[in-house]
Amino acid sequence: MLHTSVVEELAIAEQPAPSQEMSVRTAVAGVTGYAGAELAHLLLNHPRLSGQIPVFLGRMDDSAPQSLHEMHPQLTRNSGRPAPQVVPFRWETLQDAGTQVLFLATPHEQSREWMPEAIARGLRVIDLSGAWRLHDTANAAVYKLEDADPAAAATLQAEAVYGCPELHRDAIRGARLVANPGCYATSIILALAPLVSAGLLDLDRGIIADAKSGVSGAGKAATAKTHFMYAADNLSAYGVFGHRHTGELLEQLQLTRDQIQFTPHLLPIPRGILSTIYARLKFAGSRGAVEKVLREFYADSPMVRVHKAGDLPQIQHVVRTSFCDIGLELGPDGKQLVMVSCLDNLLKGAASQAVQNLNVMCGWNESEGLL
Amino acid sequence: MLHTSVVEELAIAEQPAPSQEMSVRTAVAGVTGYAGAELAHLLLNHPRLSGQIPVFLGRMDDSAPQSLHEMHPQLTRNSGRPAPQVVPFRWETLQDAGTQVLFLATPHEQSREWMPEAIARGLRVIDLSGAWRLHDTANAAVYKLEDADPAAAATLQAEAVYGCPELHRDAIRGARLVANPGCYATSIILALAPLVSAGLLDLDRGIIADAKSGVSGAGKAATAKTHFMYAADNLSAYGVFGHRHTGELLEQLQLTRDQIQFTPHLLPIPRGILSTIYARLKFAGSRGAVEKVLREFYADSPMVRVHKAGDLPQIQHVVRTSFCDIGLELGPDGKQLVMVSCLDNLLKGAASQAVQNLNVMCGWNESEGLL
Amino acid sequence: MLHTSVVEELAIAEQPAPSQEMSVRTAVAGVTGYAGAELAHLLLNHPRLSGQIPVFLGRMDDSAPQSLHEMHPQLTRNSGRPAPQVVPFRWETLQDAGTQVLFLATPHEQSREWMPEAIARGLRVIDLSGAWRLHDTANAAVYKLEDADPAAAATLQAEAVYGCPELHRDAIRGARLVANPGCYATSIILALAPLVSAGLLDLDRGIIADAKSGVSGAGKAATAKTHFMYAADNLSAYGVFGHRHTGELLEQLQLTRDQIQFTPHLLPIPRGILSTIYARLKFAGSRGAVEKVLREFYADSPMVRVHKAGDLPQIQHVVRTSFCDIGLELGPDGKQLVMVSCLDNLLKGAASQAVQNLNVMCGWNESEGLL
Amino acid sequence: MLHTSVVEELAIAEQPAPSQEMSVRTAVAGVTGYAGAELAHLLLNHPRLSGQIPVFLGRMDDSAPQSLHEMHPQLTRNSGRPAPQVVPFRWETLQDAGTQVLFLATPHEQSREWMPEAIARGLRVIDLSGAWRLHDTANAAVYKLEDADPAAAATLQAEAVYGCPELHRDAIRGARLVANPGCYATSIILALAPLVSAGLLDLDRGIIADAKSGVSGAGKAATAKTHFMYAADNLSAYGVFGHRHTGELLEQLQLTRDQIQFTPHLLPIPRGILSTIYARLKFAGSRGAVEKVLREFYADSPMVRVHKAGDLPQIQHVVRTSFCDIGLELGPDGKQLVMVSCLDNLLKGAASQAVQNLNVMCGWNESEGLL
Repeated sequence: MLHTSVVEELAIAEQPAPSQEMSVRTAVAGVTGYAGAELAHLLLNHPRLSGQIPVFLGRMDDSAPQSLHEMHPQLTRNSGRPAPQVVPFRWETLQDAGTQVLFLATPHEQSREWMPEAIARGLRVIDLSGAWRLHDTANAAVYKLEDADPAAAATLQAEAVYGCPELHRDAIRGARLVANPGCYATSIILALAPLVSAGLLDLDRGIIADAKSGVSGAGKAATAKTHFMYAADNLSAYGVFGHRHTGELLEQLQLTRDQIQFTPHLLPIPRGILSTIYARLKFAGSRGAVEKVLREFYADSPMVRVHKAGDLPQIQHVVRTSFCDIGLELGPDGKQLVMVSCLDNLLKGAASQAVQNLNVMCGWNESEGLL
Repeated sequence: MLHTSVVEELAIAEQPAPSQEMSVRTAVAGVTGYAGAELAHLLLNHPRLSGQIPVFLGRMDDSAPQSLHEMHPQLTRNSGRPAPQVVPFRWETLQDAGTQVLFLATPHEQSREWMPEAIARGLRVIDLSGAWRLHDTANAAVYKLEDADPAAAATLQAEAVYGCPELHRDAIRGARLVANPGCYATSIILALAPLVSAGLLDLDRGIIADAKSGVSGAGKAATAKTHFMYAADNLSAYGVFGHRHTGELLEQLQLTRDQIQFTPHLLPIPRGILSTIYARLKFAGSRGAVEKVLREFYADSPMVRVHKAGDLPQIQHVVRTSFCDIGLELGPDGKQLVMVSCLDNLLKGAASQAVQNLNVMCGWNESEGLL
Repeated sequence: MLHTSVVEELAIAEQPAPSQEMSVRTAVAGVTGYAGAELAHLLLNHPRLSGQIPVFLGRMDDSAPQSLHEMHPQLTRNSGRPAPQVVPFRWETLQDAGTQVLFLATPHEQSREWMPEAIARGLRVIDLSGAWRLHDTANAAVYKLEDADPAAAATLQAEAVYGCPELHRDAIRGARLVANPGCYATSIILALAPLVSAGLLDLDRGIIADAKSGVSGAGKAATAKTHFMYAADNLSAYGVFGHRHTGELLEQLQLTRDQIQFTPHLLPIPRGILSTIYARLKFAGSRGAVEKVLREFYADSPMVRVHKAGDLPQIQHVVRTSFCDIGLELGPDGKQLVMVSCLDNLLKGAASQAVQNLNVMCGWNESEGLL
Repeated sequence: MLHTSVVEELAIAEQPAPSQEMSVRTAVAGVTGYAGAELAHLLLNHPRLSGQIPVFLGRMDDSAPQSLHEMHPQLTRNSGRPAPQVVPFRWETLQDAGTQVLFLATPHEQSREWMPEAIARGLRVIDLSGAWRLHDTANAAVYKLEDADPAAAATLQAEAVYGCPELHRDAIRGARLVANPGCYATSIILALAPLVSAGLLDLDRGIIADAKSGVSGAGKAATAKTHFMYAADNLSAYGVFGHRHTGELLEQLQLTRDQIQFTPHLLPIPRGILSTIYARLKFAGSRGAVEKVLREFYADSPMVRVHKAGDLPQIQHVVRTSFCDIGLELGPDGKQLVMVSCLDNLLKGAASQAVQNLNVMCGWNESEGLL
């Protein structure tokens, strides 16, 4: 079976029973970055959270609150409500606010460090970094994680649920620790999961995922590669054979490194990912039949849209939405398959997927606040 | 053998002996488009053609000459020489000017129609369209060509040389009809030819060419897809399983449709192509060994640059140059191969390759006027 | 006084008394264009209109309904509701739907032609074109309008209210015909109106409005100037001394052509306008005092944000919002004034301003559905 | 008279007599930046310098030579010549190479520090920074320059010639120290100088220069403002009333701060400047008459192109050229003047203007190596 495992079943058993909350008290650490900012924006406009303002946390060493509006003028609006403040990170602040769900939009080192205490304090945590996504230690090694208490961290890791609601909805519902997926990984896993889990692909022929992302995926730090003069009017491949999201593909799709190859490229646009995925069906089929497999797989998944024949997704149609759009073409031999999967790397690839996980954890409609 | 055939050997036999001309009289039909404009620019600055101004031809139904400078202000410069004129297309104009080599930067229907007369008039022709590139009639069918004299056209087609100097230098030298390659095709063929011809690839595993091109590749016509609002901040795949350049890949690399799959994408940049190519070596090897095969293959080809380890080509580094840059990475198994091939679609993908063919046809240094 | 006149006072008197409607039935003609699409999106998400789907109308000669979602995949979302249809324009359709307010996002010729019948049928109309904005016939001449019944058109023109709620809120409240302002005009008028109406500017020194707009301002038609290759990596001035929005500046600010000069430029971005405005105060003052004049003028105007010292607006911060952001700097002499005014040309410059007018006409909160 | 002064006449007298050199030995310090790279590219392709490779210098604390090709892969080409090396900065290196002309493409602090020694060593220097452009100490104060020997620096400053060949050709011919103009300043000064020097403008009405530049103008350092996510899809004004190029406008056009106002903006494009300039003629005239004044002023200036009526310059037409293109429109009153001036900020705004100065200093054709 594709997406449960012993670990996951245990995780479900250990968790508090899910309940349909009317609302919850949330907090976001790391609102300075792009994903954190989008998350703040989504939470501020979430219908279930309308009575409250989430706690927005910056760094531990910040000395004074800052205005979220001034930090991200393009995202937060003069809605008549008092401008939200970003306060220095303190556990006490979370406690005083009665925080129930904490989002970590922090670097993976920070997420790794804070998680044990957060869980110990009874918080449910949705982590947007790569710190807790990988269960296989060989895969996780790319993150060079250091744990104060390795045994406790390993236990927590075993409990962590990969936050792809389309695959792990049940486990997420009761999870304490949700590891929100990587942006590239989301676009590729959602395209392939229905076909891989149905055993339709000829894995011996290998799968190619050629992915292209806008510059926001490279983060807010000003570097040689995020300089306008580097990114504009350009396209470049990077991380060939070594991108950190590869481990997520292997674990979630249960593939070997020989079976899937993933190459990311840097697009000269602010946001959006398009992954072109090449695979081969075991048996010759029709385009319609493959589309049907996807439609049925995602029948109850409101954030995935399967495209009709002749209508491949493109980045422009998903940017600033919370959808993952998937289209496909089948070659004249009925076996060669090309899939195109698009999403907004900051939304379905990060912030809106985190909110989708919140919705699942709270027993709300999965698309609440995302349409 | 990869790139000669009975047809080609005959073609060589029939051609005039190549001679090293000091200069030749050239003409360009179709200077209104992007490729034609780049070609005009290159010819005006070509050291062998410094004593003359090429004849620039517009449409047959143009009523009056136009200034090339006003037609393409960004390309042609106030160099103190009289501004070149674009005159209506007339066979007599070519004859009066003593034209020896005619470039056709015209739509394929026009190239197909004019070619027989051009050859009959003793012109050597370099055609930038797709009209004469494909020898297999099944492949050529995508162009829906109609010939006034099908038998004569077939004879001419058999004589036509595919104008990739790196593969067909000898045949081009004496050719009367050079069919300048497609832009996507050039980037993919140059990356693969050394490995395919050496028999190094496991063709049963298939080759994937995921290619991305700037908007100038879509031509100068204002359409829904060349509208700024469509192309900007976007990426879209198109022509999946059906792009017209596929036939060139099949014929030049002698592959079947089952062995190679090519998907083009529209990039939000003015110019440049990057093709990411996935293949599998028959036997495990080293990155250095593969690089060496490419270096030796292109040892005498000044317009191809093979990149060193850790230095993949990117579009920005080839735009406005006449080079095709090729880089590669080999997976940990020594078999999974990723190649990245970049060129400027209007230069090495069109105009500079045409000039390179001119250089070869005239016995000049192949890079003359292109560095 | 700046912004009432005899005509306007009459218009108010003739109009139906404003009432606070719970909801109204709306229709949009011209949803195929960019502004129409944004308008459709806003109306579909307007809290007062949640119980209904507006009537979306295409052209009179359309033969069949089309899906709004397929027409504008980037704007309309799979929200679970049935996908809205765009039906051919018919007066009967409007009548059958009980339409009360009609938005015309049509070319100015079409708006001019349809308006008399729309008003005669008892509809209140918000016209996004330039057809009814100008009261001075010399100014209006740039539109080359032809009326079937010139006298009736003149009467209607006299009644038309310029739909800038910040200046004409009271007149809009009861208006039958609201002429939604031009995008450039909105950005310039909102910056200058407080200072001009307070008599603070030395008009003899002249006002310069140097404005820059994204490509969506040029409309959806594929033309040489909307081609990606023309607009990308470029900046060009156009319509110097002759842009059609000039008349709006003259009439709304009550200036002469000698007193204000307006030059538009085409920016290589999809959307957004930034106008840099140069003027001179009559008497030396402080930056804070000028800011205060603006703040007081817009105290009750939720869609205008006046920026603080050291914080000039930029396009990125207003794109996809319904705000006009205004900032300013004062020179060391206390007289030289530079103002920067930014808005989204498709929202505050078109669609959201139209909804703002709807809100005013219905007695709703002016920012309803716009935050 | 506009552009000579007592200082300048003295400077001429003190200089070595100009001679028409066949070639000179050149060096460039600061080839790591954008302007230095363009300069290297121009010098490597300059016909008068074809027998030599300029000395390319990095920082004093560089430990080893680097390949220019690897430093700037998009600019330098595989021309068959050995790849130029960038060596650590040493005075001895310059001496050993017999350097006669040194280009400083270094930060202004570095240029200020090195200049006295360079001059003392008998080098002629073309400095691309702002260190030596301003003669009025109040204007120069924006650079916060510190001199080891203030008196010597002041003497050198008095001798420095502002390197705008169109205005100071004679002084440049014999100069030891040429201060290459700022990019914005060049575009504005070249547009205005003919009209200001002829006394045609009503300076009491003031001049507005609204200028827009691509991101390369902000330099190669990765900062919050050169981040792709800041610059892309955006436009922002900056340095209002305080940009450092203002002093150049005042000194070269002999204007007061009350007479000219200059506002720069950051465009979302890699390179190019467009300045829109608003002024008023003293007496009503015709567009043609104003154009004629410009044409006559630039009759012997090959790098300035005056545009005809109805043909305003745009950035796309000058990028990657060494020209400054100037166009204009006159209002219906015959007095309101709008000028549009375009250039490539890295070429006519920096590197090609430096080469133009070299050409003048050596008695060569002013456009040599620039067409």
